[in-house]
Amino acid sequence: MTTTWVPGADDSGYGADNLPYGVFRRPGAEPRVGVRVGDYVLDLAALLGEPEFHEATLNPFMARGAAAWRATRAKISGTLTHADGRARAEPHLIPLAEVEMLPPFAVADYVDFYCSLEHASNVGRIFRPDEEPLKPNWRHLPVGYHGRSGTVVPSGTGIVRPRGQVKPPDADAPVFSASNRLDIEAELGFVVGTPSPLGEPVSPASFSEHVFGVVLVNDWSARDVQAWEYVPLGPFLGKSFATSVSPWVVPLDALGAARFPGREQDPEPLPHLRRRADWGLDLRLDVRLNGETVARPPYDRMYWTPDQMLAHLTSNGSSLRTGDLYASGTISGSGPAEQGSLLELTWGGSEPLTLADGSTRTFLHDGDTVAIIAEADGMGGGGIALGEVTGTVLPAPR
Amino acid sequence: MTTTWVPGADDSGYGADNLPYGVFRRPGAEPRVGVRVGDYVLDLAALLGEPEFHEATLNPFMARGAAAWRATRAKISGTLTHADGRARAEPHLIPLAEVEMLPPFAVADYVDFYCSLEHASNVGRIFRPDEEPLKPNWRHLPVGYHGRSGTVVPSGTGIVRPRGQVKPPDADAPVFSASNRLDIEAELGFVVGTPSPLGEPVSPASFSEHVFGVVLVNDWSARDVQAWEYVPLGPFLGKSFATSVSPWVVPLDALGAARFPGREQDPEPLPHLRRRADWGLDLRLDVRLNGETVARPPYDRMYWTPDQMLAHLTSNGSSLRTGDLYASGTISGSGPAEQGSLLELTWGGSEPLTLADGSTRTFLHDGDTVAIIAEADGMGGGGIALGEVTGTVLPAPR
Repeated sequence: MTTTWVPGADDSGYGADNLPYGVFRRPGAEPRVGVRVGDYVLDLAALLGEPEFHEATLNPFMARGAAAWRATRAKISGTLTHADGRARAEPHLIPLAEVEMLPPFAVADYVDFYCSLEHASNVGRIFRPDEEPLKPNWRHLPVGYHGRSGTVVPSGTGIVRPRGQVKPPDADAPVFSASNRLDIEAELGFVVGTPSPLGEPVSPASFSEHVFGVVLVNDWSARDVQAWEYVPLGPFLGKSFATSVSPWVVPLDALGAARFPGREQDPEPLPHLRRRADWGLDLRLDVRLNGETVARPPYDRMYWTPDQMLAHLTSNGSSLRTGDLYASGTISGSGPAEQGSLLELTWGGSEPLTLADGSTRTFLHDGDTVAIIAEADGMGGGGIALGEVTGTVLPAPR
Repeated sequence: MTTTWVPGADDSGYGADNLPYGVFRRPGAEPRVGVRVGDYVLDLAALLGEPEFHEATLNPFMARGAAAWRATRAKISGTLTHADGRARAEPHLIPLAEVEMLPPFAVADYVDFYCSLEHASNVGRIFRPDEEPLKPNWRHLPVGYHGRSGTVVPSGTGIVRPRGQVKPPDADAPVFSASNRLDIEAELGFVVGTPSPLGEPVSPASFSEHVFGVVLVNDWSARDVQAWEYVPLGPFLGKSFATSVSPWVVPLDALGAARFPGREQDPEPLPHLRRRADWGLDLRLDVRLNGETVARPPYDRMYWTPDQMLAHLTSNGSSLRTGDLYASGTISGSGPAEQGSLLELTWGGSEPLTLADGSTRTFLHDGDTVAIIAEADGMGGGGIALGEVTGTVLPAPR
């Protein structure tokens, strides 16, 4: 573990091996780009002076490409770990309590994948009990679809319970009502920095040249709306009302100790999807409902790795833009309480959870707060915190 | 018909009753916003001087809202139809041949609907021959899904034949190859000008306050890729390689004479989707393959109207952004050669078209050029041209 001179930082999960980027604002001031160290944000605009840090989003910095990311990380790391950096940097360390965190990047396109074998199998069993749970394509490609980038919201945004068309099982026709099956999906999101031209697929080998870092994602889902609408063109309004992302983008370089080859795949993927480097990630998520842990989804059980997702996404020649966000899909393991959605944790609402206060939940109640946090091992034993994405359910309008 | 002093404009489809907006550039100059009149573009930056016309997209002007759109249209119309406007405006009329047309707007989110009863029924029969062609939800809501806004390209962009995973019917496993079933979808696109806040649905009655105008859309589709990938989360790479849009955005106010109540709907939609004004549109499309008309899709047969699409899209509280684009889905009638896709025109490739040169087509060949044009009646008998969206198929890489 690399140690810093920043008070309290080394054991906080936000030490010198993490250095996640975010956008902050002091009261009355303009937004700026900073890096989190312990309970401080290091003001990069003030420290480094480069114009891309005097911005309201990470996009201009992310667009500079991987060489610039690495050079900047080395500079910040050096400043924070050497005593002679202290005089220069200390004036630009601002306590987190004094800043407001803003959305870290402007989302270009948002794609949501479906990369957990356990999640896809569970959803198949619950939504289509009379069929094979996995569709024939599932083991051959990372299934995914486009979501609504305009409703990606920062952590802390209140989630208004959506209204929508739902068809009660015993009714002849649908009704329009507030969703009664409001759910979460605990996911990991990958943020594209370096764009790619139309017509040029990106190989799995180029993953770390294009992807800047990761965020935590809660892909809020109205299961009753989704179940009625999703055939044959996929989820739409059951998802598009809100998707929350965490405020700190953790660079891929911070995840070195978490990397492993990835879960074994059978059959072997076609050549354009074959892994060229270790991009399995051993991350441990913690899903908290009103402060109580209800699930600990293990990211290391994901079937498809993010380099494969990126290669698939671009295999038809689709271009990438700075700010593209693609998420893993719900993270679910096979053990008890390892599922990243209430749909699975309560088996379609049939097995309610009992919380510490004695109340039960199938799906979310108004006023419920969901927080997803995650951590990974850092180099040399320190921890890497991925931060938190949180949101509270607000009542449906009227 | 309102007549203008612009030579040749009155009978061109681009007379004073049309006045579509686009973004153009003279060689070596900055992009500007203009209006098409006959075979000229009227330079609005030079004529009106307002800063939103000195821009590379229509977004800043569209964001000003419907009152500004109407005031500007009245001003331009007055200038073009009264003799005393001639001295002021004539210096700012530039022959189209002297300008390059740029993408008219920056696309925020792109949604593709599926609003033709005939198209949805045909696709159902072709893709799922053993099932009811229409899913149970189809007559209750306008089915739609999000597409990739980063690959919306201007008319004239070459369309590289995509590669992708396809599963031959007799094979055990998929292969990765160039698409052999490259298709078109002739659609109408609606461009959002006025944004709406998260959590506040937009009523069908507010359609014309939010939607600025229409473009023609070719939603290129790789049917073999789509057929393998689309379960259960919908089309993804079979569509995301390119979507072409026409250069001129025709304001809703130009379509007054084309409006009618819309096709009868059975069952009556739920209250939040009920029509409040006549937004059926009698537009006549013409799909040309290498210059030869292969289909004349009639927009007036569409089942769901665009005010209903917008109300559905926002019914869960989804916000709108300036630049959101939503398309109707393939336009197909029930008569011969009224279908807006080769999938339908050749019945899944089983009934090839014979072209004038004696060659046949099921799906597109490399080098094929597809153009979609459309027109409507204007007030008092003049025609309203919706322009053209065109693209030529380029060979797959390697």
